[in-house]
Amino acid sequence: MSKNKINTKVLSGFVELLPQQQLTFDTIKNIVEASYRSSGYVAIDTPVIEKSEILFAKAGGDTEKQVYRFSKGDNDLSLRFDLTVPFARYVSEHYNDLFFPFKRYHIAKVYRGERAQKGRYREFYQADIDVVAENELSVMYDVDIISTIASTIENLSKLCNLGNFKMKISNRKIWDGFFDEFSISGEQKASIMNIIDKKAKITPEVFDAELSERVKNSNVERLIKELFELEFIPNIGVSIPEKYHSDFSFLSANEKMKSGIRELETVIKSLQTIATDKFIIDLSIVRGLDYYTGTVFETFLDNHPEFGSVSSGGRYENLCDNYTDKKICGVGGSIGLSRLFVPLIEDGVVTNIAPGLVDVLVIPQNENCYLIATEIKNKLSEGLVNICKTSIIYENKKFKKLMEYANKVGAKFVVIVGDDEVKNNAFTLKNMQSGEQVALPINDMLNELKKNFNR
Amino acid sequence: MSKNKINTKVLSGFVELLPQQQLTFDTIKNIVEASYRSSGYVAIDTPVIEKSEILFAKAGGDTEKQVYRFSKGDNDLSLRFDLTVPFARYVSEHYNDLFFPFKRYHIAKVYRGERAQKGRYREFYQADIDVVAENELSVMYDVDIISTIASTIENLSKLCNLGNFKMKISNRKIWDGFFDEFSISGEQKASIMNIIDKKAKITPEVFDAELSERVKNSNVERLIKELFELEFIPNIGVSIPEKYHSDFSFLSANEKMKSGIRELETVIKSLQTIATDKFIIDLSIVRGLDYYTGTVFETFLDNHPEFGSVSSGGRYENLCDNYTDKKICGVGGSIGLSRLFVPLIEDGVVTNIAPGLVDVLVIPQNENCYLIATEIKNKLSEGLVNICKTSIIYENKKFKKLMEYANKVGAKFVVIVGDDEVKNNAFTLKNMQSGEQVALPINDMLNELKKNFNR
Repeated sequence: MSKNKINTKVLSGFVELLPQQQLTFDTIKNIVEASYRSSGYVAIDTPVIEKSEILFAKAGGDTEKQVYRFSKGDNDLSLRFDLTVPFARYVSEHYNDLFFPFKRYHIAKVYRGERAQKGRYREFYQADIDVVAENELSVMYDVDIISTIASTIENLSKLCNLGNFKMKISNRKIWDGFFDEFSISGEQKASIMNIIDKKAKITPEVFDAELSERVKNSNVERLIKELFELEFIPNIGVSIPEKYHSDFSFLSANEKMKSGIRELETVIKSLQTIATDKFIIDLSIVRGLDYYTGTVFETFLDNHPEFGSVSSGGRYENLCDNYTDKKICGVGGSIGLSRLFVPLIEDGVVTNIAPGLVDVLVIPQNENCYLIATEIKNKLSEGLVNICKTSIIYENKKFKKLMEYANKVGAKFVVIVGDDEVKNNAFTLKNMQSGEQVALPINDMLNELKKNFNR
Repeated sequence: MSKNKINTKVLSGFVELLPQQQLTFDTIKNIVEASYRSSGYVAIDTPVIEKSEILFAKAGGDTEKQVYRFSKGDNDLSLRFDLTVPFARYVSEHYNDLFFPFKRYHIAKVYRGERAQKGRYREFYQADIDVVAENELSVMYDVDIISTIASTIENLSKLCNLGNFKMKISNRKIWDGFFDEFSISGEQKASIMNIIDKKAKITPEVFDAELSERVKNSNVERLIKELFELEFIPNIGVSIPEKYHSDFSFLSANEKMKSGIRELETVIKSLQTIATDKFIIDLSIVRGLDYYTGTVFETFLDNHPEFGSVSSGGRYENLCDNYTDKKICGVGGSIGLSRLFVPLIEDGVVTNIAPGLVDVLVIPQNENCYLIATEIKNKLSEGLVNICKTSIIYENKKFKKLMEYANKVGAKFVVIVGDDEVKNNAFTLKNMQSGEQVALPINDMLNELKKNFNR
């Protein structure tokens, strides 16, 4: 590159894929979208730019520092850092034109000026689903969210050969009720929740030591550890192991804890009808963001622990309260599309899941054949829309060079248009894999290709 | 709304659609994408944020003022104002990993802080296609771009009942060669091109007066007007009417003009094989942006002159020269998706082109039926992925209320799950249009729905 040219490298922390990688990523994105749609979630599209006051009504300190914020005219603007806050604004603004329960999906880019590191991007795709309603919303929608995410990840995992996954599920009401019982609140509660959140990432010894230091009450400390053994027993339900029942005698009077356990039971029981080994109770799942109020979940790939949770979400009650007097409650979940798949694609772990860039390449052999070849290409493109991708190459080069191009773009068939073919009104259709070739008039060729690409 | 709530209205000049409108817009967007793909264009996705120096290498004064520009850390950043400049950067950066001619499409949002007015948005979708290659690129790719845009607009126009359209085509080499002939250049040439560009929007009298003032040479003025009569005659070609031949005797020695006329002839001749009434030579099409160097085109809807050109583009030679020493030439076109369709959708002109938000709604009649209804819904969602959209409603409300919801979301079928249905293991499938209902086991229901939605 000569000195006076501008550096064209993409900004640090931003993603840019080559065409075949892009096709792979888009194939994955389309599968997620098809899965969300087929489960009854409908698309919305909100602006990338929001008024800063909208975004900062809920955002915590760390998020605020990461936001791309700027002025234009008199407006204090920011790029969205997630899809949930814009959704809360959308629901508040369009409340009278929506129907509830309202199930929406949104697959789009969000922006966070994080320190750039592998798998952490400054612009990345999230794939969100949420259900919201006014005042109340059956806990069965928690099941709807989790099962939709589960079947989406199942599809992706199969396609990309990622192996098994587990969804760890909890309910924040259980901890909230528990800490109420012992009058633990404010900073102390936050500090204990914080170490519970870290449990899976640290050794049991460190966890015990940290827990002890934060709780400062050996009885409560023991109960917390016993609570982690909360279990689901098919045909019976979710309960604390019998040996601890006497320790939890207070439970019968603690409505919040009981309600959390009942909800967790409903969720787990319903999910068992889908699979018996994928959905696990894990009370260490609390989710950092403080807006969750009930069910919470995270998702882990058995063979790819390096990604941490690849999909998470939960139930919230107060997300719209800065925007409207209406009491909107909801439950949602999100798949971190870029964070999961961009590294897998760039590292060549996920590859060859998408077809070639071009399926059928029309090759006119000289300039006299351009016009008829163009007609053929247009007929194939139109006749095979949504079935396959037809292109054409106009280059005055040796046939071998043109076939090299066909191979590069992954063409499964080439259509050769030369002087003889034009004279006979039958064009050579060559299968690039088998090497077989037949001479066909255009309509027969259209049918032959339809048969080949329509499974 | 109470006083202390934040205003949730979307920013002025930004678009936000209701779910049914969004589905209509997305249907249109998908048709464009399918059309581009089927013609052999491949997707790329570049960041919304670029380094400002990348964007401003080519942008003119007015564009620069409209750009959303801001700093983050040490970086001077901007939101892209079109998809062409980022594409030029992409091609320069990834040159060695691409294959040429490289045909790409990109359908995405771009940003311009224009004065907000109807049909002018600050965030809007463009749908671009381009072909680029090093050093040379056959004029047949101009045909590929124009015919792909034409068949896309044809599909959209039919779907949305927009009536006929015309594509006006010219070639900048004709004017460039003409002005060279008379040594007209610099500001005078720009000023004359500017009034030529406005010809269709002003009266002939005003045009004549303005032209005369700017040309200041009655011979040249007459020749310009004669040149506007350049015509295509089937089986002969593109030429100046015979009565003017002696005026243009210099043409035989003007290579640039001749080359422009020959290219225009190739383009028009090839397009005639698609339709004889859609492609018109119009030398008043010059396209404001100065990077075009050959073929230029604009597209007009007969019944909607208020939109001006709904799709335009052309040939360029020097788009990458700020980024690379390689000589990249290309041709491209763009459909202004938001500018055309958002007003038509918001005004209710384009409506009912998309199906309902939900196709099949599962309705459990009481809480005892939730679990089995959930299983049914999951089976339908999975079995009918990419075929139809299945949802479920968990609400303890009267059946009538639930049916109202079914109507609101546009459900074509409801599946009723009540105690009797569970007992008999056959569930009521009701056609919402005909009122017909049948009781079916789940697998039969799956097949019945498949038959109904798979055309």
